[in-house]
Amino acid sequence: MSNAVTSPPTHVEEWLALSLTPGMGPTRARKIVDHFGSAEAVFRASLTELEATGIQAASAQAIATGKSGELAREEMARAAEQGIALVTYEDACYPPRLKEIYDPPLLLYVRGNSELLNQPGIAMVGTRHPTPYGSGMAERLACDLAAQGMVIISGMARGVDTASHRGAISAKGKTVAVFGTGVDVIYPKENSRLAEQILALGGALISEFSLGTFAAPQNFPIRNRILSGMSVGVLVVEAAEYSGTRITARCALEQNRDVFAVPGNVTNKNAWGPNTLIKQGAKLVATWEDVWEDLPPEVKLTLKPAVPPESADASSASLFPDDGLPPHEQRILSLLKADEATHIDELVERLENEMSSSEIFAALFELELTGKVKQMPGKNFVKSF
Amino acid sequence: MSNAVTSPPTHVEEWLALSLTPGMGPTRARKIVDHFGSAEAVFRASLTELEATGIQAASAQAIATGKSGELAREEMARAAEQGIALVTYEDACYPPRLKEIYDPPLLLYVRGNSELLNQPGIAMVGTRHPTPYGSGMAERLACDLAAQGMVIISGMARGVDTASHRGAISAKGKTVAVFGTGVDVIYPKENSRLAEQILALGGALISEFSLGTFAAPQNFPIRNRILSGMSVGVLVVEAAEYSGTRITARCALEQNRDVFAVPGNVTNKNAWGPNTLIKQGAKLVATWEDVWEDLPPEVKLTLKPAVPPESADASSASLFPDDGLPPHEQRILSLLKADEATHIDELVERLENEMSSSEIFAALFELELTGKVKQMPGKNFVKSF
Repeated sequence: MSNAVTSPPTHVEEWLALSLTPGMGPTRARKIVDHFGSAEAVFRASLTELEATGIQAASAQAIATGKSGELAREEMARAAEQGIALVTYEDACYPPRLKEIYDPPLLLYVRGNSELLNQPGIAMVGTRHPTPYGSGMAERLACDLAAQGMVIISGMARGVDTASHRGAISAKGKTVAVFGTGVDVIYPKENSRLAEQILALGGALISEFSLGTFAAPQNFPIRNRILSGMSVGVLVVEAAEYSGTRITARCALEQNRDVFAVPGNVTNKNAWGPNTLIKQGAKLVATWEDVWEDLPPEVKLTLKPAVPPESADASSASLFPDDGLPPHEQRILSLLKADEATHIDELVERLENEMSSSEIFAALFELELTGKVKQMPGKNFVKSF
Repeated sequence: MSNAVTSPPTHVEEWLALSLTPGMGPTRARKIVDHFGSAEAVFRASLTELEATGIQAASAQAIATGKSGELAREEMARAAEQGIALVTYEDACYPPRLKEIYDPPLLLYVRGNSELLNQPGIAMVGTRHPTPYGSGMAERLACDLAAQGMVIISGMARGVDTASHRGAISAKGKTVAVFGTGVDVIYPKENSRLAEQILALGGALISEFSLGTFAAPQNFPIRNRILSGMSVGVLVVEAAEYSGTRITARCALEQNRDVFAVPGNVTNKNAWGPNTLIKQGAKLVATWEDVWEDLPPEVKLTLKPAVPPESADASSASLFPDDGLPPHEQRILSLLKADEATHIDELVERLENEMSSSEIFAALFELELTGKVKQMPGKNFVKSF
């Protein structure tokens, strides 16, 4: 797709024209494309035919008079000049997960590596005013996840977004910044250098807003649906009670994305968001493994982790199962079998001269917690293998 | 039960004698009581009959020769002298929830208000070395829950236990300290004053260990099953990776008690315990309401909260539903009905000249988050009432 600018894929002009038509949102645009059979067919329709669909008169006129097409060609020229690719809804590079949401953008403006849009990514979101804990965690988790081959998707805002992109960069990983402005408008300005670093490492800057769109508050929540829509899951780091992060997390739930959240001290206002999401069922994340564990198997397969994701603890535990165990635990383990359950009453009975039932319980808990023993229903225990 | 010392309930001597018999744990003791029909009947049995049950020879002899009975009478005299009540398994004051566990103590030594053992309590547990955040949260939550009439049950150890008892005291609430020593041995010593305060406010100090039992490491995990066993739920405040708190939390799960945990920064080693428990399904607790919400209705009914537990937010929101809402949200709310669902497509259609579908989404999320709108399956929305 690096040559997308010089040889644009089919229908770029038409999709772009639709998106630049006044009074025409993505949902409505897709409806009239469906009505006429294709984006091209919309532009072959007469004013009467267009008006008959019930779209606004201004929209119908802009299309029928060629005004929309003209705007599109101008925008395409500007994009080409700046090396910006236009990835339409019909393009093979269009993020597959983004198509699943209710109102996917008609097209995305892309600077950098468009192919990245096809790869599994995790959206990282949070407050623009994190505590050192918040920005530290965002950077750490982004770094660790990027090292596993995950694309880190964020909004390049101040705070958690910036820390997340930085973390990915520190792992020399791939990251995508989804702008709430035109993709040619860096906001906040201090992130120009960050934008360059993202591109230098094969990342991408994307937006659904037309070139030159300046920062406007209402565009940021709209942008957030792309963040969650593109991703396999959304990781919330710090967010206060009234924040756009809640909307992104809500989008994620709407879109059937996993929601992950980093807990924090409840005395920290910024922990309200993640803690509340965890209460509502978001997965608590302390390390990157907590995200990894919940990824769909097909996603894990497409990633190439630098280190094997499975910890070696479990297997090493079963290689030397009795090493260094307290005497009570060793004794109990000696009575348990790996292939047959032993009932607690039998243990109490057999050990009655050696330890109390409470001591047996305490030892069994410990053995279970360290994975050496597994409890079956009805207080039956087996040795792990 | 304050007169328990002068007129002991039936079978105190026999249950005490059983608990002081060498080689006799609670489980085994209950078995031979079942075998002979009552605690008294055990002491009417002959040595041969006792030996035939398969108990240890030393146990049988101690019972048959009257040695156990003698020990019990001596202990009862010591208890009476110090104003310590003996609450047996058969006593009406015996904590009802404690009977549900696998190996309830045969009897409890009680200083203070025995009737408290019958009232719903929450166990609060955690590390002996909390951060200021941990001890602050323990004190705050204990204070708030005690103010609602909950009995705060803890172990009077240093750290989280001490902070929890203190919190209850600061609310002039009731608290029970479950000792891992004899109830006449204050450990750690610096808590003598705390013990007095607990008693002065109508609380209790209890133990299953015989009088004069000194602090021994193995007794503390054993004690922990009483903490969780007596309570309706266990609230974990701070606990490092390898800690007795894990055992208590595990006990609680075993005993079908709710487990509550206060989250913390993952960079704090003491947050490992609660965060991990939350990952495993414990309820995240930021305020006392988070515990309150999950209490069984019958428990809430027996408590007399100082302030009504339900927040007034929801109802006041519906009294003035449109006040101060952003224009988009007001407009959308004006189209929704309380008694009939409106599909998202209808909203998009009707609002197409006023706002984009993305703006509609953002506004709907906000309305849903503030409880003004409810989403039904299939992207249908109703106004809350």
